[in-house]
Amino acid sequence: MHKYENISDPVIKRLPRYYRFLGELLEKGVTRISSKQLSDKMGFTASQIRQDLNCFGGFGQQGYGYSVESLYNEIGNILGLDHNYKAILIGAGNLGKAVAIHMSFEKRGFSLIGIFDNDPAKIGTTIRDLTVTDLDDLEKFCTENKTDAAIFCVPKTAVAAIAARLHALGVKNYWNFSHYDLTIDFDDIIVENVHLNDSLMILCYRISDANDAQHLSEDQ
Amino acid sequence: MHKYENISDPVIKRLPRYYRFLGELLEKGVTRISSKQLSDKMGFTASQIRQDLNCFGGFGQQGYGYSVESLYNEIGNILGLDHNYKAILIGAGNLGKAVAIHMSFEKRGFSLIGIFDNDPAKIGTTIRDLTVTDLDDLEKFCTENKTDAAIFCVPKTAVAAIAARLHALGVKNYWNFSHYDLTIDFDDIIVENVHLNDSLMILCYRISDANDAQHLSEDQ
Repeated sequence: MHKYENISDPVIKRLPRYYRFLGELLEKGVTRISSKQLSDKMGFTASQIRQDLNCFGGFGQQGYGYSVESLYNEIGNILGLDHNYKAILIGAGNLGKAVAIHMSFEKRGFSLIGIFDNDPAKIGTTIRDLTVTDLDDLEKFCTENKTDAAIFCVPKTAVAAIAARLHALGVKNYWNFSHYDLTIDFDDIIVENVHLNDSLMILCYRISDANDAQHLSEDQ
Repeated sequence: MHKYENISDPVIKRLPRYYRFLGELLEKGVTRISSKQLSDKMGFTASQIRQDLNCFGGFGQQGYGYSVESLYNEIGNILGLDHNYKAILIGAGNLGKAVAIHMSFEKRGFSLIGIFDNDPAKIGTTIRDLTVTDLDDLEKFCTENKTDAAIFCVPKTAVAAIAARLHALGVKNYWNFSHYDLTIDFDDIIVENVHLNDSLMILCYRISDANDAQHLSEDQ
């Protein structure tokens, strides 16, 4: 596996999108693509795409474009999707259930090995092929099963205490759907947040900002 | 309502977080806070916070800190949360259902007024207090009910056709959970994406990158 250093954050954030697009091209049987064609499909400029892909040594040959399959595989490697990190999900409510059922963890570098809740009505029920486990058994489970990451789908008031237990167990990688900022408590963790409320408020801002701009121009 | 111009994108993206934190402080009965205290709680530097809040005219008085309530209300105004935009949700599967039930739309500037699906097994069922409507009735519904925004919780292969129908109806603001990039088809829309697969792959990258770095340092 290649090791790439100093990849900037904006490039990293674009990688999944490249990966998705290239996967779609592969499915359609496309074998080669130019940066111009990628640019038309992805909405990035061709020069941005060349610059991004050059971070990884550049797979393109002048005039021949990129091999879709090599590029797809290499970006998958860079993302580390072959790692099969073991993840547990905390919170089997509506959101947790949807995340468990909806996501293709295996294709994204993870497998979901456990689901936990403290609600007696949920403990013992089955989601996907997993039985919801009592949160009290978290320590036992993580000791018996190598656990790389935890997914938080619990109310923000519940996160800190559960994160402290996981952190003590050495589980320090989190996919966090709760509106709680875990980095305030720990500085040796990896967190990727999905803050749905924040995203919805930003949509609200953009709509109201565009409407205001329209009204201002109508006034003139 | 104040109108602020030229607020940079990074500042906009931080606004919901300020709003959340200030809301929590209000609930706890805190009336004033200094940028230093906000900084400790939020993980931004105090100078960044002062700089951000200065974009809106600066609410702080030297030595007195900020009035939590004024700042909270003002950021709510800037976000446009009092607008009550009418939103419909397309796709009543696991994810759509979770989004419908889980979100407090009213607190985030929206109200959810309709849920649509094309699956006969889902049409007619109730989610929240809404009956799932046949997607065939989309035009009728949007003509009869002022609709400001649509939420996509459908597979990516279904998005383009539905977006084209909504766009023709004048519904051009989208909260998009599908892995389909709507900006490729339209240049006069507002989209806020929640790409869960991309987020999970970025978590995978960060874990594998940190592990690689650890191995490299162990090698030395």
